[in-house]
Amino acid sequence: MTMTVDLNADMGESFGAWSMGDDVALLDIVTSANIACGFHAGDWDVMAATMRAAARRGVGIGAHPGFADLQGFGRQRMHVPLESLANLVRYQLGAAQAMARAEGAEVRHLKLHGALANMAAEDRQMALACYRAALSVAPEIIIMVLAGTAQQEAASELGCLAACEIFADRAYNDDATLVDRSRPGAVIHDEELAAERMLKMIQAGAIITESGKHIPTRIDTICLHGDTPEAIEIALAVRKLLTENGIVLSQPKGTPI
Amino acid sequence: MTMTVDLNADMGESFGAWSMGDDVALLDIVTSANIACGFHAGDWDVMAATMRAAARRGVGIGAHPGFADLQGFGRQRMHVPLESLANLVRYQLGAAQAMARAEGAEVRHLKLHGALANMAAEDRQMALACYRAALSVAPEIIIMVLAGTAQQEAASELGCLAACEIFADRAYNDDATLVDRSRPGAVIHDEELAAERMLKMIQAGAIITESGKHIPTRIDTICLHGDTPEAIEIALAVRKLLTENGIVLSQPKGTPI
Amino acid sequence: MTMTVDLNADMGESFGAWSMGDDVALLDIVTSANIACGFHAGDWDVMAATMRAAARRGVGIGAHPGFADLQGFGRQRMHVPLESLANLVRYQLGAAQAMARAEGAEVRHLKLHGALANMAAEDRQMALACYRAALSVAPEIIIMVLAGTAQQEAASELGCLAACEIFADRAYNDDATLVDRSRPGAVIHDEELAAERMLKMIQAGAIITESGKHIPTRIDTICLHGDTPEAIEIALAVRKLLTENGIVLSQPKGTPI
Amino acid sequence: MTMTVDLNADMGESFGAWSMGDDVALLDIVTSANIACGFHAGDWDVMAATMRAAARRGVGIGAHPGFADLQGFGRQRMHVPLESLANLVRYQLGAAQAMARAEGAEVRHLKLHGALANMAAEDRQMALACYRAALSVAPEIIIMVLAGTAQQEAASELGCLAACEIFADRAYNDDATLVDRSRPGAVIHDEELAAERMLKMIQAGAIITESGKHIPTRIDTICLHGDTPEAIEIALAVRKLLTENGIVLSQPKGTPI
Repeated sequence: MTMTVDLNADMGESFGAWSMGDDVALLDIVTSANIACGFHAGDWDVMAATMRAAARRGVGIGAHPGFADLQGFGRQRMHVPLESLANLVRYQLGAAQAMARAEGAEVRHLKLHGALANMAAEDRQMALACYRAALSVAPEIIIMVLAGTAQQEAASELGCLAACEIFADRAYNDDATLVDRSRPGAVIHDEELAAERMLKMIQAGAIITESGKHIPTRIDTICLHGDTPEAIEIALAVRKLLTENGIVLSQPKGTPI
Repeated sequence: MTMTVDLNADMGESFGAWSMGDDVALLDIVTSANIACGFHAGDWDVMAATMRAAARRGVGIGAHPGFADLQGFGRQRMHVPLESLANLVRYQLGAAQAMARAEGAEVRHLKLHGALANMAAEDRQMALACYRAALSVAPEIIIMVLAGTAQQEAASELGCLAACEIFADRAYNDDATLVDRSRPGAVIHDEELAAERMLKMIQAGAIITESGKHIPTRIDTICLHGDTPEAIEIALAVRKLLTENGIVLSQPKGTPI
Repeated sequence: MTMTVDLNADMGESFGAWSMGDDVALLDIVTSANIACGFHAGDWDVMAATMRAAARRGVGIGAHPGFADLQGFGRQRMHVPLESLANLVRYQLGAAQAMARAEGAEVRHLKLHGALANMAAEDRQMALACYRAALSVAPEIIIMVLAGTAQQEAASELGCLAACEIFADRAYNDDATLVDRSRPGAVIHDEELAAERMLKMIQAGAIITESGKHIPTRIDTICLHGDTPEAIEIALAVRKLLTENGIVLSQPKGTPI
Repeated sequence: MTMTVDLNADMGESFGAWSMGDDVALLDIVTSANIACGFHAGDWDVMAATMRAAARRGVGIGAHPGFADLQGFGRQRMHVPLESLANLVRYQLGAAQAMARAEGAEVRHLKLHGALANMAAEDRQMALACYRAALSVAPEIIIMVLAGTAQQEAASELGCLAACEIFADRAYNDDATLVDRSRPGAVIHDEELAAERMLKMIQAGAIITESGKHIPTRIDTICLHGDTPEAIEIALAVRKLLTENGIVLSQPKGTPI
């Protein structure tokens, strides 16, 4: 049987006169792009250009909504009422859909960004509010969730199309949470190591933690980064090793969890 | 033969903690609502609430995009490249579509706001850029244009669904432009006068200027306001007089110009 | 000996085309105005107009900085690094100083707004960061603190000029915190009751809690509101009763705590 | 007699997570820094860091206000009422003063940014409104003006402290305006050429146009750029050639025009 996995990365994070990331390089590596929607990064022009570039390469387009916090890049936790969060997700998803449609493409998936994602990974109610909102706009959208978190529980409860994600460059604790960035080894800088970890986890169908524990989970997509030359190297190495081992890279089907 | 006209008004112009206009009163008067999309007014929560209220009353929902100028309420002219304007229209229209869809409704029409509308009324290229952008997202959307301006020329050139609009409370010059607000009589404050003018223009199929000149034009919709008690009085008077004279009030069909 | 107290209120909370509050009425009642600085409310034009109006009436001008959250009116808690908070306070204070200076006035005091104030009332480190930042810009500024909270502790630790504040329309718990708004009686709507409570607390030199407990505290200023007709009634009643009882209303001297 | 000239450059144009320009390199070259104030670029954190870096190197700090147009980087023309423009300049200048003061420094000069600068260079009333506003906040501030434009006329009319500026990397028309960027030769890319032009103009006390015409003008400061490696090369070459020719580089004194 053929194993298949999606490679995703955040993109379209430039804003106005400011550039961020190497989207062109990433688009040749990934199969899905999480495109910022103008609240924490991205703007109407950046979105249009990124959608066009993704569509031309056949990369799956995703909406990547975040908090309305441009100065903080959506990385600062904000305490927003759930109904307002729902509207914030709807608004950003709709904007993304329009930009995609104008390029003859469509938004296939949705992935939460930054502090919004982190909070939803801990708080099922918050994840439910965000995902229900997305589904109220696009019932067939694939919800990309952090494997083993409240995000996954929420998507499972909703029975919606979903994709479970692991990180290529982050170490895991034994409870499936990410090792805090302040701890040594939390962020993986070596591309060979990152690639081998991904291959092992996919073959095992499990998150493998720092201590070696296996946490069985569906793995549909791997999160890559492109904001440093090192990140691009890791992304390339992951793609290469998976391909060499017969794993097919393609957009997630979104089977319900 | 029955005459039909649409009554439209700008709505959803509150923002965050700030209210504006009497949307509840207006929704009982108009047949179409032009809903701000978050750039010059409105936000995700205001849009959601306004869409819901409009949908419940069967009032037609329109996207009302403006410049990215919250402090200036989109009333300050900005010189934005056409391609960026196109993206700005797409983004706002998409956001509006999502908010409508979440309420089981849809965006039927698009009308430009403020300085963006004024500039597009003078500049066919700008109107074309905005309307093409809207159509690239929603090919069946009805473009609401200021009768007798470059907006109308652009919609005519595109052959898209369209609705021609006149103002209930503004006097016209002999070239179909609006009398400058600084001139006496430019803004009509008397509700009987406003209502009679509208009835006459619709029956004549023409804009009737201050000097009495008739400029033949299709009239599909009348723009009302709701930002003052006086404006609500005018809106009510127009509705009443038209109805009494057998004119049917309903959303525009959007016949191409 | 004459007793003296300051009456303060939040002001300048309009933004662009949107109005909020009845600043004109309030300016005839209060002795100090806390003027929004453009991040959660207020803008450069609103600030200029409010500063001018306050200066003309001899009302003391205060900077009222908040989170960079216009849509949430600075009422949503945000987790911002302390150094960034410090810069955010400096920036807003400086902007306020310039607007005051242009009117021949000066910023006498600083009071934190909304969620920023609430968080600083619970977290001494956060209060210290904000107040040190203000003092780095204006060493002689009076820091207005919520009596009995971490705000007061921080001002006391810094030894800076300070004024201790109580609320006219909010009930207190026995630990000097405010009764949660969701509880009955938390917000006082009766103007006579509000006025009598203020008189008693000032005469007692103590916060009097819902249960009748006296928590001794310095009381330098009373916070009034002006966002509803009722609030204006309460403000007027407090002013009247205090004056009738020989209490002098004037700006705080800012004696260190 | 010793000739003296200032070298200035725009700085602090990063925003949140986005970087722009090589401020560190520029700060070792220039004698004055024009620091963005948060409206078109820069934010409270970027301002603080840039002020600190400039202050440590003894580089003169200037406020560089622009339109409230972050997405457009203040490069899009906006039609803002003069009184609102005045408030916008006051607000940004005040914010800059506070950030400087917190670093034990002060704002010595003000230079308008982008489209605001371009419009003020053509429109004396606009320049007057902006400069009067700055002087209402800081009567001793040095107004940096584009030599030979309406900006210079306005500063001359006001009799304020001023510094006249020429561009290192732009060709001039015979009426002292800049050659349009779309024309060949409009932007100078060769560092030797740029440096020689500056030396000649300073020695001649005149703008030397593309055709060779000399337009006598006071030259107090040269505008350098730092947004490309090439721009840094030009800046270094100008500094080197002027120094080698005995021209002293130092902050402008601001003698009235």
